[in-house]
Amino acid sequence: MTVVYDRVALIGLGLIASSMYWAIKRAGIAGHVSGFARSGETRRTAREIGLCDEICESAAEAVHGADLVVLCVPVGAMGNVAAEIAPALKPGACVSDVGSVKKAVFEAVAPHIPDGVHFIPAHPLAGTEHSGPRSGFATLFDERFCLIVPAERTVPEEVARLSAFWQSLGAHTEEMDADHHDLVLAVTSHAPHLIAYTMVGVADDLRRVTDSEVIKYSAAGFRDFTRIAASDPVMWRDVFLNNKDATLEILGRFTEELFALQRAIRTGDGALLHDYFTRTRAIRRGIIEAGQDTDAPDFGRMRRD
Amino acid sequence: MTVVYDRVALIGLGLIASSMYWAIKRAGIAGHVSGFARSGETRRTAREIGLCDEICESAAEAVHGADLVVLCVPVGAMGNVAAEIAPALKPGACVSDVGSVKKAVFEAVAPHIPDGVHFIPAHPLAGTEHSGPRSGFATLFDERFCLIVPAERTVPEEVARLSAFWQSLGAHTEEMDADHHDLVLAVTSHAPHLIAYTMVGVADDLRRVTDSEVIKYSAAGFRDFTRIAASDPVMWRDVFLNNKDATLEILGRFTEELFALQRAIRTGDGALLHDYFTRTRAIRRGIIEAGQDTDAPDFGRMRRD
Repeated sequence: MTVVYDRVALIGLGLIASSMYWAIKRAGIAGHVSGFARSGETRRTAREIGLCDEICESAAEAVHGADLVVLCVPVGAMGNVAAEIAPALKPGACVSDVGSVKKAVFEAVAPHIPDGVHFIPAHPLAGTEHSGPRSGFATLFDERFCLIVPAERTVPEEVARLSAFWQSLGAHTEEMDADHHDLVLAVTSHAPHLIAYTMVGVADDLRRVTDSEVIKYSAAGFRDFTRIAASDPVMWRDVFLNNKDATLEILGRFTEELFALQRAIRTGDGALLHDYFTRTRAIRRGIIEAGQDTDAPDFGRMRRD
Repeated sequence: MTVVYDRVALIGLGLIASSMYWAIKRAGIAGHVSGFARSGETRRTAREIGLCDEICESAAEAVHGADLVVLCVPVGAMGNVAAEIAPALKPGACVSDVGSVKKAVFEAVAPHIPDGVHFIPAHPLAGTEHSGPRSGFATLFDERFCLIVPAERTVPEEVARLSAFWQSLGAHTEEMDADHHDLVLAVTSHAPHLIAYTMVGVADDLRRVTDSEVIKYSAAGFRDFTRIAASDPVMWRDVFLNNKDATLEILGRFTEELFALQRAIRTGDGALLHDYFTRTRAIRRGIIEAGQDTDAPDFGRMRRD
């Protein structure tokens, strides 16, 4: 594998940045990777486990001389971090990010980017229920999609270079504009997360059903919701606050449809329910065929012995 | 393993019955297992793959001489099947079922059970996204719970015997009354399934986001919903029609909470969102610790190469 960027800086050292580092090492596509995290404890952990070739004491120091700077902080922190690193950016460098929302990140970061520095937002669609510098692993992005969201006048060669970088980490890349990205993600990620958080919250609140019952009997369907409802709270707070319109639109549609199904239950309209449940099977088949999930019967199951 | 019931009859040959058969064989806890399915094609498939020691041409024939009869048909079909087999039941036999709703099944089946025959409803909490006679496997019930829901005057020895049977199939057993069962399942299974079906339906309906986008980018959270939204449509139609009150109660609470979170998004109340998302993590930890799910980072992932 050839080097795509000689020097890479990762700002924020959670699940995504730490996985990027291990995937960069696996691919051998960068000469040197520096890292920074705001928390001293995270920096200590990173040094202890050998995360990044160098852990710096400030974001500005970390981006010094970097050809690619990737902002891996919660969406709500992107603007401040951009302001902080702006004076230290190398002319000709590329700044990117991994935020789950693109329009708000663009608006927060773009004003700080100096002339002669490229800014290309991106979003790798991958994650686990774990967070923090110890949670990363090299294969996180394999066969997953990374959406590249260039602004109108971005230099095509720089977009191609960033795409090549993500492909080297194992991902498929696609280009998309920021508005469409935010709508697609509201459907495939943001609304599902809020719904999962809500369902888990309801179960936790219900006094007549104990938490231990909810836990013991979760294999009947509930457990599928709990995995995404265990995601990082700060990250998700920022996602919802920064993709307000698209998320609320999808949740509005969701509520409409849910009411229609509730009404069918109340009135005993079995035909409507049956038709609805038949239609949703096709989407699942598509996901299996596209290699984005497994239909193995032991999915999520394990033996204690 | 000693024989718990000499002759067992399985009525309806889908995922649960076929898994029961393979688990019975693995455990060696029955001398003879007969089976019946209403569809001629299912009976042919069962004979072809060696499912059951004998496939009968009627439900009455299948239950003839059986010590344990397990009704494995959709909840809405239980009453008719019970009426059909009633005259053929052996005195002293035990009739049970595997339906996901217990009060409605009790009311539909109990009036048909002759004097001298025991009736003990049960519900194994296990499943996959597949259905039909070919979908069963011996380990489906391992480490899962089977809820036994005896009526008031049921003979304790018969309850113990049915519990021993399910334990031999790999399950943990718990006793519960029908009303509580239906509420617990509304929380852990029925409401989550309806919500998942709804979310998948919304994604499928949205014209500005194509199905292929939904499928490609599903790893961002959506795919977790699609597995349970691929479950058998007839089974689920019957569950909702027969556990109407508890399901609608939980959905009402769910909608209330969802509205509160939507309002927090609209008004920008980050603190409320953050607190809510932190609280739901604890439930997830409980489920992992109870061995009801895995937190392995490759959960649901696979490599194509």
